[in-house]
Amino acid sequence: MAIRFRGPLYIIGVLLLPLAAAMVVAAAVDFHANNPDWKAFIYSAAITIFAGAALMLTTRGGPIELGTREAFVLTTMSWTVISIFAALPFLLSDAQLHMADAIFESVSGLTTTGSTVLTGLDTRPPGILLWRALLQWIGGIGIIVMAIALLPFLRIGGMQLFQTESSERSEKVLPRAADIAIASGRIYASLTVFCAVAYLAAGMSPFDAVCHALTTLSTGGFSTSDASMAKFSPVAHWFAIIFMVAAGLPFVRYIQALRGDPAPLWRDPQVRLFLRFAALVIVLVSLEHWWEFGGSPERALREVAFSVVSVMTTTGFINSDYNAWGGFSQVLFLMLTFFGACSGSTSGGIKMFRFHIMGRAFSNRVSLLIYPHAIRPFTYGGRTVSEEDINSVLAFWATYVATVAAVAIALAAFGLDFETAVTGAATAVSNVGPGLGPIIGPVGHFAGLPDSTKWVLALAMLLGRLELFTVLVLLLPRFWRD
Amino acid sequence: MAIRFRGPLYIIGVLLLPLAAAMVVAAAVDFHANNPDWKAFIYSAAITIFAGAALMLTTRGGPIELGTREAFVLTTMSWTVISIFAALPFLLSDAQLHMADAIFESVSGLTTTGSTVLTGLDTRPPGILLWRALLQWIGGIGIIVMAIALLPFLRIGGMQLFQTESSERSEKVLPRAADIAIASGRIYASLTVFCAVAYLAAGMSPFDAVCHALTTLSTGGFSTSDASMAKFSPVAHWFAIIFMVAAGLPFVRYIQALRGDPAPLWRDPQVRLFLRFAALVIVLVSLEHWWEFGGSPERALREVAFSVVSVMTTTGFINSDYNAWGGFSQVLFLMLTFFGACSGSTSGGIKMFRFHIMGRAFSNRVSLLIYPHAIRPFTYGGRTVSEEDINSVLAFWATYVATVAAVAIALAAFGLDFETAVTGAATAVSNVGPGLGPIIGPVGHFAGLPDSTKWVLALAMLLGRLELFTVLVLLLPRFWRD
Repeated sequence: MAIRFRGPLYIIGVLLLPLAAAMVVAAAVDFHANNPDWKAFIYSAAITIFAGAALMLTTRGGPIELGTREAFVLTTMSWTVISIFAALPFLLSDAQLHMADAIFESVSGLTTTGSTVLTGLDTRPPGILLWRALLQWIGGIGIIVMAIALLPFLRIGGMQLFQTESSERSEKVLPRAADIAIASGRIYASLTVFCAVAYLAAGMSPFDAVCHALTTLSTGGFSTSDASMAKFSPVAHWFAIIFMVAAGLPFVRYIQALRGDPAPLWRDPQVRLFLRFAALVIVLVSLEHWWEFGGSPERALREVAFSVVSVMTTTGFINSDYNAWGGFSQVLFLMLTFFGACSGSTSGGIKMFRFHIMGRAFSNRVSLLIYPHAIRPFTYGGRTVSEEDINSVLAFWATYVATVAAVAIALAAFGLDFETAVTGAATAVSNVGPGLGPIIGPVGHFAGLPDSTKWVLALAMLLGRLELFTVLVLLLPRFWRD
Repeated sequence: MAIRFRGPLYIIGVLLLPLAAAMVVAAAVDFHANNPDWKAFIYSAAITIFAGAALMLTTRGGPIELGTREAFVLTTMSWTVISIFAALPFLLSDAQLHMADAIFESVSGLTTTGSTVLTGLDTRPPGILLWRALLQWIGGIGIIVMAIALLPFLRIGGMQLFQTESSERSEKVLPRAADIAIASGRIYASLTVFCAVAYLAAGMSPFDAVCHALTTLSTGGFSTSDASMAKFSPVAHWFAIIFMVAAGLPFVRYIQALRGDPAPLWRDPQVRLFLRFAALVIVLVSLEHWWEFGGSPERALREVAFSVVSVMTTTGFINSDYNAWGGFSQVLFLMLTFFGACSGSTSGGIKMFRFHIMGRAFSNRVSLLIYPHAIRPFTYGGRTVSEEDINSVLAFWATYVATVAAVAIALAAFGLDFETAVTGAATAVSNVGPGLGPIIGPVGHFAGLPDSTKWVLALAMLLGRLELFTVLVLLLPRFWRD
């Protein structure tokens, strides 16, 4: 059967409308600030609404049926199309980015990566700064919904383990995935409000507080300052650490907790592994950092905890230049770039549940060497993990590393040096934000890179955000055969 | 049942005797050259013979029974013990290495890695140079025997796919693994002689020709000059390319070819993938190299082909400084470090058959996303690949990358910079030899590294050489339980 594009196109049309609404919000802010950019946002909104309405009108009629293949097409196509429309304000506003920069910034926003080509942020008009923050916040919603309602059913990289969660009696949260998505969205919005209030209390301006709250809960990492969070107070850093961790936990667990059952949150193997691993790394690196650089213990702990949590949750905020902490930190932060936090959150990377499964699979594999017939099945979150599930996770990991390698080779072929190419590839596929080295490191930015590499990086961010296989399946000739 | 150490210890005793014989050969060369080091080799040989004889005498009596666990103990223990005795000449001779350097050099030799802490090679006495070459040659024999007779039966990282090869009717080579090992050893020795003659014809001195032939066929890469093969003629480089490729092919296929059936050699999926992939990389990089640096096409092709083959077969000879070719080459050569050539040869790394299986598994996995019930079994070398086999290979790959990451973190923790730590870890685990960057790159060496990192690197070389799982299984508490 031919792929029915009507459904995906209609849904993309619908999705363009909230994007246009966000443009109107940015326009209002710039209008209020007497900044001429408000027109750029209104033009962008008009184009986006027109396109969305046109898509909806030309594809309406009859119920929408989404099969597996339509779901794959919808996923990649919606992120691509929305990224293109989201780039309009960067093209039309005073920022006057050219095409490669505009698309890079928009993709970096929607995928909640946080790499930026915009400099001089501190003196930019509020509209464009809010727009970047809104992009990440909207992207974050999209990721949570996708991770809860779509990817488990598409069986992406072992995510089938989260498939029946909502229908299992013991784990019953809400009857349907759509309801879970809506409830998650509410929690996401509420946490964003709490975060903004906390930042305000920590001395940030209302505008900075809102923008950073939007990019904290989405683990995005865009800032309103070239200095990122280093511009703000230590108290703000501690709040950021708390809310970045909160944003890295599975949102489904919050729903259960709000319904009076917080136990699943603490019992969740992803949450336990993430918190334990992050705590271990933070303690070790803080001690090393304090021993090497001295200063107050609070500062060492804060700088390390902030940086580790920022990279592990794939947020990408900076409060100190960990690139300058020496070779050990550089290698460690490159590794941390791959980890990610929990599935079902806005964080990118390989994610904790896959490391959990890989650890168990490794231990099984080693046991099998001595006891060839002693297959020891294990469970994950109450569900038996099949050889097939393990295979999915291992194939995801292999494909992940291969993708980073391929992106690094492409970046180097377009002229980037060794460290920039390798860490740029890792940070893009994992949707973290900063890389290492003098160019794209914590105190650098992506503005000076050749355009060709920006296209490669934008593609890498989308690939990573959509968990690779969602995009790669489209390259299969058989996918398109009737 | 308790692990019976008697068998492994007896066999290690036996294995020490040829090592002592090699020491006597080096002694004879130094005696002939009127170099006082001959005494160091004789002392070393005496200690080694004494230890070997003592081991044999104290463990003799009754037939030797090797179960699976004894085979694992034997493998790791024999490589470790032999490395320690092989370090004696480095400690006792004029080279006067201290413990960390001596063990590093001996492990680098026996694992056919080729990283070196010895400098000023061009003026060193012949005994120590020959000793290094002999170590690699002996190590090479050990690897081929291990890969044919042992690892497939221990089911290491998917090597069970080569398990029944010798007993399958269509692939019948020789009745027993031991016979295959002996026949492979003969071919290995013959190819070494051919290689030495070729080097001699290319203008190398008889001593250089022999030493380099020993380290070519073992894909080891120790040289008699600080400049490595750059010291010799272009013709020698071409011969080296041919013999490095020959050393990277599965030796079992040579046996079949010699028996009048060369078809399996060309039909072997490992051979095809290796030759095609190497050719593709060589053509692309040669063109890029010629376009960027100019010069004669022969020179561009020779430098690139030599470097690519040297790294892919994990030999590690140098004929030009590819570290200076720019970011693209650096990233590419880091990736190539992981590949390795064919299983059943002396090359290290992940090896071609695993990439083959991973490629098929990936393609299957992507297909499964659209057709969830359409499992498409595939064969490898005439044998059906089970989910279990795929799982072994993927787990090997995941463990490989995790091991390199862990080694890189350890190296960086002991003070190495980012590039040296990452590429040093990769080159050690893959048994290649040179890393990247100014310290351990193609024109550098490992002499100046802190001792702590040399121990880490020596461990990494052994881990990689023994295909990780052979060693890691010993860390399992259950392994040691009766």
